[in-house]
Amino acid sequence: MQPTRRKPTVRKTAVVLLVIGLLVGLPAAAYAATDNETQFVLNTFAFLIWGALVMWMAAGFTMLESGAVRTKNASMICLKNVGIYSIAGLAYYVIGYNLMYVDVGGFIGSFNIFYTSSAAEVALVNGEATAAATVNVISNGYSVMSDWFFQMVFVAATASIVSGAIAERIKMGAFFLFTMILTAFIYPIVGAWTWGGGWLSEMGFTDFAGSTIVHSTGGWAALAGVIIIGPRLGKFRKDGSVKTTPPSNVLVVTLGVFILWLGWLGFNGGSQLALGSAVDAVSMAIVLVNTNIAASAGFLVALFISRPILGRMDLFTGLNGALAGLVSITAGPTMTDHYWAIIIGAVGGVVSIYGTRLLEKLKLDDVVGAIPVHLVAGIWGTLATVIAAGGQFGVQLLGVVSIGAFVFATSWIGWQIVDKVLGGLRVSRQVERLGQDSGELGIEAYPEFVLMPEELGEED
Amino acid sequence: MQPTRRKPTVRKTAVVLLVIGLLVGLPAAAYAATDNETQFVLNTFAFLIWGALVMWMAAGFTMLESGAVRTKNASMICLKNVGIYSIAGLAYYVIGYNLMYVDVGGFIGSFNIFYTSSAAEVALVNGEATAAATVNVISNGYSVMSDWFFQMVFVAATASIVSGAIAERIKMGAFFLFTMILTAFIYPIVGAWTWGGGWLSEMGFTDFAGSTIVHSTGGWAALAGVIIIGPRLGKFRKDGSVKTTPPSNVLVVTLGVFILWLGWLGFNGGSQLALGSAVDAVSMAIVLVNTNIAASAGFLVALFISRPILGRMDLFTGLNGALAGLVSITAGPTMTDHYWAIIIGAVGGVVSIYGTRLLEKLKLDDVVGAIPVHLVAGIWGTLATVIAAGGQFGVQLLGVVSIGAFVFATSWIGWQIVDKVLGGLRVSRQVERLGQDSGELGIEAYPEFVLMPEELGEED
Amino acid sequence: MQPTRRKPTVRKTAVVLLVIGLLVGLPAAAYAATDNETQFVLNTFAFLIWGALVMWMAAGFTMLESGAVRTKNASMICLKNVGIYSIAGLAYYVIGYNLMYVDVGGFIGSFNIFYTSSAAEVALVNGEATAAATVNVISNGYSVMSDWFFQMVFVAATASIVSGAIAERIKMGAFFLFTMILTAFIYPIVGAWTWGGGWLSEMGFTDFAGSTIVHSTGGWAALAGVIIIGPRLGKFRKDGSVKTTPPSNVLVVTLGVFILWLGWLGFNGGSQLALGSAVDAVSMAIVLVNTNIAASAGFLVALFISRPILGRMDLFTGLNGALAGLVSITAGPTMTDHYWAIIIGAVGGVVSIYGTRLLEKLKLDDVVGAIPVHLVAGIWGTLATVIAAGGQFGVQLLGVVSIGAFVFATSWIGWQIVDKVLGGLRVSRQVERLGQDSGELGIEAYPEFVLMPEELGEED
Repeated sequence: MQPTRRKPTVRKTAVVLLVIGLLVGLPAAAYAATDNETQFVLNTFAFLIWGALVMWMAAGFTMLESGAVRTKNASMICLKNVGIYSIAGLAYYVIGYNLMYVDVGGFIGSFNIFYTSSAAEVALVNGEATAAATVNVISNGYSVMSDWFFQMVFVAATASIVSGAIAERIKMGAFFLFTMILTAFIYPIVGAWTWGGGWLSEMGFTDFAGSTIVHSTGGWAALAGVIIIGPRLGKFRKDGSVKTTPPSNVLVVTLGVFILWLGWLGFNGGSQLALGSAVDAVSMAIVLVNTNIAASAGFLVALFISRPILGRMDLFTGLNGALAGLVSITAGPTMTDHYWAIIIGAVGGVVSIYGTRLLEKLKLDDVVGAIPVHLVAGIWGTLATVIAAGGQFGVQLLGVVSIGAFVFATSWIGWQIVDKVLGGLRVSRQVERLGQDSGELGIEAYPEFVLMPEELGEED
Repeated sequence: MQPTRRKPTVRKTAVVLLVIGLLVGLPAAAYAATDNETQFVLNTFAFLIWGALVMWMAAGFTMLESGAVRTKNASMICLKNVGIYSIAGLAYYVIGYNLMYVDVGGFIGSFNIFYTSSAAEVALVNGEATAAATVNVISNGYSVMSDWFFQMVFVAATASIVSGAIAERIKMGAFFLFTMILTAFIYPIVGAWTWGGGWLSEMGFTDFAGSTIVHSTGGWAALAGVIIIGPRLGKFRKDGSVKTTPPSNVLVVTLGVFILWLGWLGFNGGSQLALGSAVDAVSMAIVLVNTNIAASAGFLVALFISRPILGRMDLFTGLNGALAGLVSITAGPTMTDHYWAIIIGAVGGVVSIYGTRLLEKLKLDDVVGAIPVHLVAGIWGTLATVIAAGGQFGVQLLGVVSIGAFVFATSWIGWQIVDKVLGGLRVSRQVERLGQDSGELGIEAYPEFVLMPEELGEED
Repeated sequence: MQPTRRKPTVRKTAVVLLVIGLLVGLPAAAYAATDNETQFVLNTFAFLIWGALVMWMAAGFTMLESGAVRTKNASMICLKNVGIYSIAGLAYYVIGYNLMYVDVGGFIGSFNIFYTSSAAEVALVNGEATAAATVNVISNGYSVMSDWFFQMVFVAATASIVSGAIAERIKMGAFFLFTMILTAFIYPIVGAWTWGGGWLSEMGFTDFAGSTIVHSTGGWAALAGVIIIGPRLGKFRKDGSVKTTPPSNVLVVTLGVFILWLGWLGFNGGSQLALGSAVDAVSMAIVLVNTNIAASAGFLVALFISRPILGRMDLFTGLNGALAGLVSITAGPTMTDHYWAIIIGAVGGVVSIYGTRLLEKLKLDDVVGAIPVHLVAGIWGTLATVIAAGGQFGVQLLGVVSIGAFVFATSWIGWQIVDKVLGGLRVSRQVERLGQDSGELGIEAYPEFVLMPEELGEED
């Protein structure tokens, strides 16, 4: 198949056939159902275009996090997040996808290396397909690699969640090595249990686009990291007070949240996993509507209750509320009673605020609020979907607990392995004070701007 | 319908049927028309994916405005714009859509609360649809909620236009309350007259994607606000001179314009409202081309005439020219004589400059130029479409005037109501001098950067 | 065709027909192939939606470049890049497309002015199409203007490449005039030789989405500019050392790279040029996967080898490595042996680093590394595609050399013409020291921020 941009030659016979076809075919075909090949094309294309929006969430996490950390660490966040997306893509290609989706027997898939197009697809694109091979391709319902692409951008999102929580003190190399473990093994195994058709799926556990499978998984991995690595210097003072660390660039944080909101339309909409029939199209539309109004409710509720709780309307709390609304609705955005989406999103906004306060009481330092937003709201959403739309509450709880236990334990082990291999997870006190940008990378995020001198002397 | 990511089971009989189908069907089907279900899917999907790009415009307005205002008010703009999008979505869900589209009798639709999927659609996604219900769904042409989603992102755009004009001095609460009035009532009533099938539509008023319905509506509401609220302190000096207030972050403004430009492809392209036939596809392509070249012409013309008018090539004037070109072409981007798109966009760029100067002469303070760009160019575009492509000039003028009068009057009343309810629209002098970020929100947009001391003493 | 948002009237007979159609048609149609009109719609839509993502790359280049230059030139980069996109769109509409695609006879297409929809399409959208005209439209395979739109965003990308290399010292007017020459003549002629079906295409030269045709073309034009215009003041010191000029805004650079990465999915995915059949869908999915993993490999390899070469992990080198990976895979992203994509992308990352070092040794000042990324990696990718997937190495080399010679020579002449017409390409020393923002535009990118005083005295 030689790609060319030349206009297709219009054969005369084709035109004649078409005239006949249109005259005969138009009334006859007008009320038929979608044919099989078109279904294949539409299913495949939905994976690709919605997947492209999910890929864009990598930029959203990057902007959110690099605007939220202090300026002296903003470049490192940029580097880590491009690194996450790159490592996740390769790790999921080499190991993860097979482990998650291929020959899953209850707990785990295949340990094959590399994932690739089916033989029939290879024959098709090489112009060597027999009729049977073409049938084989089409009867799969979608192109093999379109599914890989869509699942890959999900594993990248999972890893991005970790990055923000443990920012400003983890070594770059340590973070990258943990990202490999998470994206090659931990997430794919959780995925095998559920979306891969393993034991939780067989019990009836349901998680439409991943409140638990993606968001809580990221959140548990982050929690293990936050505990092991410890808080930033000076975050929790000896007198029991907490140093506030407001975002260093509010515009960039807001841009990041808008990017994530847009990407989430692909994240949840694409998780319909098909676009080849009326029912898929109707469901996809419902998913987008519920996703959007849950986010709106999460933002407004978190913003307005931030005043009594924090003493002022807090934008960053509102933004995290929007994200918590999105995380919450992700487990079940297909309900046709849309007011439930508003309720689920609003409660998501509330739990993210109380989750943030709880972490502070426990002296756990989560720089961007990733754990309240992704873990706490993810648990809420996974349970809420059966409250709203029916299902087995016990199974949902079992899924939340078992995935939580597995991810927390394996992440704990993962962090320990990384610690041993690299001789430490945390940058030196000197680098932390100076900032990772100057201390570890040797650059500054905004080298020409004059920055405020940081208050010194209180860190220890 | 239990969502799952498992691969669809390939039944053997299906494969056999497919082989037969391909052998028989390929030549027969090759020149037929699109079937009904595929039309439904494509129409629905076009609403969703183009609607997602229109949602993205919310980020564009946010970046444009927060980069255009002075740094001391940039966070407040971020907060307001996420708030607009959230409030608009909920208000349009609870009240607006019904008022605009359901049972419209000349002037107004239904006052029902909530909007939801049709019973047939609910049955379909719950797997309980009879053949007749499936027919019912498909014969609607598109999924009900996909249309809601697409219309919702338009109301959000309308409200975003207001925000920039009255920035830097309106109270957050007052702004949010007015946004509710605009998105729940004013915009939906204008929409009922036109896109809802009301009296203006019956007279033949035409506005493809909303030069008047969206952009001028936003512009009139902004104009009422600008007059009532008054200019920023120190904007118009006692000696008659005007204080220049250049953008505080040019990169972010430029990014905002690019986001809007991209989103506008969805705004206008999606307003074809269908993708189920060759004529829709051809028309959508023409719309994207005209939209793009109108914006290009608007930018270049505004940029080059800024030199004789302002004494220098002015980037911000050029960017507003691009937006004015986009607004201008929005009423009628379907013309096949594409040079008309260049003319309409170019004239749009010119009127936005003179509109800006006129506002300054009238001592009306529109921070980002929203009124010249959206109101003035919107009027031009609505009239230009009949000049370019034929139509009833008188009816277009009637539409422009009647919508203008209605929106300006109801917005005026709306601002007054908000004023009474909340005891004032405008922040205190102290907060305005300090900036709304510190004064009202208690945060700063860039807390670690050293800012220039503002010239004091001239404001009053 | 009067656009309206009213719901389509559901005729009773239609519903009856639909019921019958579904009952009869569903089993019969279930395994047929995609019909002709649906193919037309899908092909057209793929051009539009992927083209929209490619348009978005204009924002990516803008952010990358304006964050990479020194703050004093950031506004000018914004202005130039919006200008590029505007000029490219109009020049390609007025002259370029005809020259590239219409009646191409070996070396060059038509010198007609303007490009427009076919007569059959015009009749179709005006509701005046005969059955034969409808056939005529559909048998073209896609809407004429959708193809124009997709090709137009490519010429804009070509021109954007030049901008970054010669930033910080070229006059705005000179740059705009050269952009016109490049987008109206140079790029379209190269395109006529290849995608337009000219002599190189007939010899078997293959370049899927433009490693050579787009990226190397931009790179050669930039190289000619860099040589003629000379390095920035003080870049190469008398003692032989090179002044490092790190990005002034790392967040914005990173955002730009993410935008480009997202846009590239459209750039390469859309270059399948069709979505009307299973083979197109399968191929498009493969293209997205290869594109993505090539970029990942390019980033990681460039990042990790930056340490031995530069003495530290360098984010900007990594980001350029990602872009080099994308450029490299662009010539042939359809291979089904995906490990080749990793190899090609990784080598692309390596050559971009060594290309950067080579330029510095030659005292050529390319501000953002556009030449190593787009020209050097573009050559590598064009040759690599035949190494990986077979083809005629000699013909590829001939294409690389002949396009290189043509673009370099015509660009050289183009720059000389601009120089003569406008009386100079380069801003005065005073403007260059002061920055083009203040010196040429009279604005600043961030007027409220306090900037570091620049080291003076060393430039000459």
